[in-house]
Amino acid sequence: MDITSETHSQHISKQFNHELEELKTHLMAMGGMVERQVQEAVSALLDGDSRLAERVRDNDKAVNDLQLKIDDECTRVLARRQPAASDLRLVLAVIRATSDLERIGDEASKIARNALALIEAGNGAKGFVEVRHISEHVRKMVRDALTAFARFDIDLALKVVHEDDAVDSEYTSAMRSLMTFMMEDPRSISSVLSVMWILRALERIGDHADNLAEYVIYLVKGLDIRHIDPDELDEDALKR
Amino acid sequence: MDITSETHSQHISKQFNHELEELKTHLMAMGGMVERQVQEAVSALLDGDSRLAERVRDNDKAVNDLQLKIDDECTRVLARRQPAASDLRLVLAVIRATSDLERIGDEASKIARNALALIEAGNGAKGFVEVRHISEHVRKMVRDALTAFARFDIDLALKVVHEDDAVDSEYTSAMRSLMTFMMEDPRSISSVLSVMWILRALERIGDHADNLAEYVIYLVKGLDIRHIDPDELDEDALKR
Repeated sequence: MDITSETHSQHISKQFNHELEELKTHLMAMGGMVERQVQEAVSALLDGDSRLAERVRDNDKAVNDLQLKIDDECTRVLARRQPAASDLRLVLAVIRATSDLERIGDEASKIARNALALIEAGNGAKGFVEVRHISEHVRKMVRDALTAFARFDIDLALKVVHEDDAVDSEYTSAMRSLMTFMMEDPRSISSVLSVMWILRALERIGDHADNLAEYVIYLVKGLDIRHIDPDELDEDALKR
Repeated sequence: MDITSETHSQHISKQFNHELEELKTHLMAMGGMVERQVQEAVSALLDGDSRLAERVRDNDKAVNDLQLKIDDECTRVLARRQPAASDLRLVLAVIRATSDLERIGDEASKIARNALALIEAGNGAKGFVEVRHISEHVRKMVRDALTAFARFDIDLALKVVHEDDAVDSEYTSAMRSLMTFMMEDPRSISSVLSVMWILRALERIGDHADNLAEYVIYLVKGLDIRHIDPDELDEDALKR
């Protein structure tokens, strides 16, 4: 059942192999696109660059189109090739992964819209340190999860799963300090709320990266670890 | 390609038919479970019932387990039966739908956790009218989307897709009045924030109901309408 001990090159049909490789390649392209969306949305906020924020917001359509295209390819592979075992898991993992990448794209677009509101209001800087820090953290998670997918790398996937707890506690602590800002200066409520939505979006991006990492484990080991507490995972067994 | 013009009973294997029916039945059971979770989370908040809120929070595990079970059944059907055309679409729609139902369950659990915080703090009533109203609206959307799925009912699915815009504008207006509350009474910030998170969760539930309705259209018509603006849908063509 282990994908690493099966060689995909043994497929009778070279064309089938090629199709599976294409799915992965397109998924990575979509991943690269949403990574860039997140990075640019945060840069737009930190640099007060409203044109960049608008570009991110308008680019979301391209992310959505790519999801439909890849999902359609997956459906065609399922219908024509009727894959089994690890090939089937690869196709299902790609379908699940496009859904998470699309939602990361949505969150990037929400960040861009809140950045625009903040730039227009001319307020800012409160909570920006936290935004920068958490955004770097979750972007690294997304990048690592995609690399783990591309390389079928269980160790890297497990690392991402564990990172998510760290992001959650950074998020909770950032939200607490923002609430204090609000209480101290009620005139800042509206702009601090925008920063809170941005932090929330970043925290959700971390959750999606965590999901992506879980699909890698499903893909390689045939084991569905969604809903298992990371601290209760038998990692040695997974790495065997 | 139209599922209504194909009779599933024509399958050579009665067992296969039975398996597809089972998938739908289990999806409906999961749908019923998350509907109840949402309803009870909101009741717990409105009635200040912390035991009910705790029960909802703890029940989330059962929802997660059901998702894994149904996804596993779907994978086995794909591997053993290698379905094509409308059967393949049914299995893929069920896989997508369990993911949205699981996320609705997550949102119900978030509502329950925020309700607990509000009950403990002994604050409340601000924004509760809006919570009640929007929760009734999104629960109806979830219920209708599931009914549309069970009956392959395009008309009902389209109705759900259009409802989502109404929920979004109710949400925006409720958030605006909560922000005013906060500004008028900064001591209420912490409790009003909890109500905002609850509204946000309800709005997300509306989005997931919208997704479920879109899968019904995909399932019946083979047409993927995710990412199409509801106002731009050619509904007459879909109903033909």
